[in-house]
Amino acid sequence: MNSFLVFLKEENMSLFTDFYELTMCASYFDNKKFEPATFDLFIRRLPANRSYLLFAGLEQVLLFLKSVKFTVEHLSYLKKQDFDQPFLDYLRNFKFTGDVWAVPEGTLVFPCEPLIRVTAPIIEAQLVETFLLNTVNLQTTIATKASRVVNAAKGKAVVEFGLRREHGIDAGMKVARCSYIAGCQGTSNVLAGLSYDIPIFGTMAHSFVMSYEKEIDAFRAFAKTFPNKSTLLIDTYDDIAGAEKAATVSKELERKGCRLGGVRLDSGDLMKISKKVRKLLDEKGLYYIKIFASGDLDEFKIAELLKEGARIDAFGVGTKMGTSADKPYVDIIYKLCETMRESGNFSPIMKLSEGKITLPGRKQVYRFKYKDGNFAKDIIALADEKVKGKPLLVKVMEKGEIIYDLPSLDEIRATAAESLSKLPERYKQLTGAPTYPVELSQDLEILIRKLKKKLTKKDF
Amino acid sequence: MNSFLVFLKEENMSLFTDFYELTMCASYFDNKKFEPATFDLFIRRLPANRSYLLFAGLEQVLLFLKSVKFTVEHLSYLKKQDFDQPFLDYLRNFKFTGDVWAVPEGTLVFPCEPLIRVTAPIIEAQLVETFLLNTVNLQTTIATKASRVVNAAKGKAVVEFGLRREHGIDAGMKVARCSYIAGCQGTSNVLAGLSYDIPIFGTMAHSFVMSYEKEIDAFRAFAKTFPNKSTLLIDTYDDIAGAEKAATVSKELERKGCRLGGVRLDSGDLMKISKKVRKLLDEKGLYYIKIFASGDLDEFKIAELLKEGARIDAFGVGTKMGTSADKPYVDIIYKLCETMRESGNFSPIMKLSEGKITLPGRKQVYRFKYKDGNFAKDIIALADEKVKGKPLLVKVMEKGEIIYDLPSLDEIRATAAESLSKLPERYKQLTGAPTYPVELSQDLEILIRKLKKKLTKKDF
Repeated sequence: MNSFLVFLKEENMSLFTDFYELTMCASYFDNKKFEPATFDLFIRRLPANRSYLLFAGLEQVLLFLKSVKFTVEHLSYLKKQDFDQPFLDYLRNFKFTGDVWAVPEGTLVFPCEPLIRVTAPIIEAQLVETFLLNTVNLQTTIATKASRVVNAAKGKAVVEFGLRREHGIDAGMKVARCSYIAGCQGTSNVLAGLSYDIPIFGTMAHSFVMSYEKEIDAFRAFAKTFPNKSTLLIDTYDDIAGAEKAATVSKELERKGCRLGGVRLDSGDLMKISKKVRKLLDEKGLYYIKIFASGDLDEFKIAELLKEGARIDAFGVGTKMGTSADKPYVDIIYKLCETMRESGNFSPIMKLSEGKITLPGRKQVYRFKYKDGNFAKDIIALADEKVKGKPLLVKVMEKGEIIYDLPSLDEIRATAAESLSKLPERYKQLTGAPTYPVELSQDLEILIRKLKKKLTKKDF
Repeated sequence: MNSFLVFLKEENMSLFTDFYELTMCASYFDNKKFEPATFDLFIRRLPANRSYLLFAGLEQVLLFLKSVKFTVEHLSYLKKQDFDQPFLDYLRNFKFTGDVWAVPEGTLVFPCEPLIRVTAPIIEAQLVETFLLNTVNLQTTIATKASRVVNAAKGKAVVEFGLRREHGIDAGMKVARCSYIAGCQGTSNVLAGLSYDIPIFGTMAHSFVMSYEKEIDAFRAFAKTFPNKSTLLIDTYDDIAGAEKAATVSKELERKGCRLGGVRLDSGDLMKISKKVRKLLDEKGLYYIKIFASGDLDEFKIAELLKEGARIDAFGVGTKMGTSADKPYVDIIYKLCETMRESGNFSPIMKLSEGKITLPGRKQVYRFKYKDGNFAKDIIALADEKVKGKPLLVKVMEKGEIIYDLPSLDEIRATAAESLSKLPERYKQLTGAPTYPVELSQDLEILIRKLKKKLTKKDF
């Protein structure tokens, strides 16, 4: 192989799937099973410490569904995997023709709530499973984590700095996207800046300082190039000595009518050092110099730093946010909830595996609010049931065509900010938050009881 | 945006970088700093429970270095970020022209050992940092985790099943690649199968079973399509009842001269259930039916299952391996270790930031073996120092050209197997393994003492 990204193309995403999707589909095809079915994509339970989920990834899901197809190269590879010719001929003309309902990106959601509901001939609905899970898992995991970090920063800027340890190229891009959705000010990832029109930020690394014999020479060199927007990294040798030199350089800039932007701390006791550095800068009248902190930060460290009075104006948050290091996934699944029987009627379906019970039937989620507009509770109901409250799922795709105006990234970010502002504070505690109430409707409860009885009684 | 992968192209990887790499390079350029420098890529410390690292990702690094360039679109975007025209003109003709030494993929390595050593004009060496870290971080993190899982399975097959919760598209591909390097038998990821020629595996999902009114109808339908290689998922309703039906279907297949491949368990107490299912199948003479287990597995669960005598023939391992869930990154860094001073001589460099000290100078790693061929210890030495032992770093790139025969994936896998077989067993314990000895050479120790003295004394 003399190329390293050659397979990461949209046209190859049909094969970006678990092999069992294809074997199941081959068997559906072989057994002439073409009737429609409905699948729910949802998250079974909250990761530790999380008390809500910030949904993201729908745009990529819809663009995938619209474009999924099999190429000649794919069919030739699948032939080698022993699929028979009639099924390969079916795949040659494959197109996703289903209907999709989904929650808009940037919406706060909770466990067991359907986030994407796919109704399509069962082969089509089954074949797209892996891509949908992969896309929503990453983006929802990271958006949720990033919103916690932004929340902990209490209005101070947070910039996503994790590119070097995020999981590969697509993750580097998507983490920038969903951190921005969650309220970060921007990213260090330049390609994400170009791709998504997200603000990009950067300062300097230790290597820049170390490439000069004296630290102050490095500062002067950088300030020469960026006289009005330098942020100097001051901890390469000794932060206080570094801050002194940054102050010297900022005075030199002042004499040229310019201003140093900030200093960055990347190691040590950020609480103590930031206070000392602030004092040093203030004593020299350099009130305008911002203190930027980075280095192994997450929502817990930021909350602690701010609680203890750290004098930090902005946070660069990397690895722990960009990989959601304490829990790098959500328990996301895609489950059959109804299928059409021979009668031509849809029949609700549920699964009884130990600890893995699912909700049957085609469903909608309703959100109820207090008088002040804050979220009070959600109810998961059957789609045809009459329930007050605001329905969260909207129809986004009909017969394989997107019938939804894809919002801009800034609109999604605004949705997230609005949604987060309406979630009562107690649910936003970093640890020990109470459980947001999600109830099942009466009709759904009745259906579940009926199916449980049937499943445990009958010879399935 | 009406496309979802449009930016994931090789030609865009120059911008897959932290913004500060570009600001630093602009300042190097502005200050006419073109002299060569050397950077080491290494891992600072072991993640919890890990006692070695399995190095992976070099192939993509070399292909990136060979191809990195800036397009017209990139330059126009960077112009909007206020870079000046002379620097943009420099980028227009940018090409990586450096020398690279690296450890071959599949080699076991330890903290602080240089894994990739880049010597190039400082702008070039700096600009490529982020991509190198991102690529090696993901692959080494996963290869290391997967090798632990394979080791825990004690010769039973392990298949990588995590695509749905791996971090995006590139991760889905790279996890399949480095799980295979680490000894997995294959992956569920069909595109990885096509792309890397890795064996692909798949069974069926609960949805397939649930789409039929009766479980046995689902089994019969699947066995009809794949009469000689069906693995039936038997836990949708009740595993023992499911096993009974699988036995019935396998007897039906026998009458047609075919054989059921296996049954899969995906929930519940795998130890107890696997024993019951094995007994049930054996009592019917179905010794040939394999038991395949999946569901929230990692190296610890697999070790426990096997220790307690679970009757499992193969493991499908997903999320926890594919995200390295207990530690989804390694503490990987890329640090300046020498730079050319005005004198024209290279001068070794080290950093003193709290807890972040680096090793100065151009280095080589030597591995020492016991008489039986097993690894005894490593020594990190200066590159021009005379040391016995096998040098690990080989020259892979000269003046920007790859001068190394990129091994095939199977060759890398063989290197990993060989390397793992030579690591004494005590270092492969899943927890509490002793620390493999990595020493610094005498000359390196002397250099460090000299530089520490200089750095703490002088006005840096």
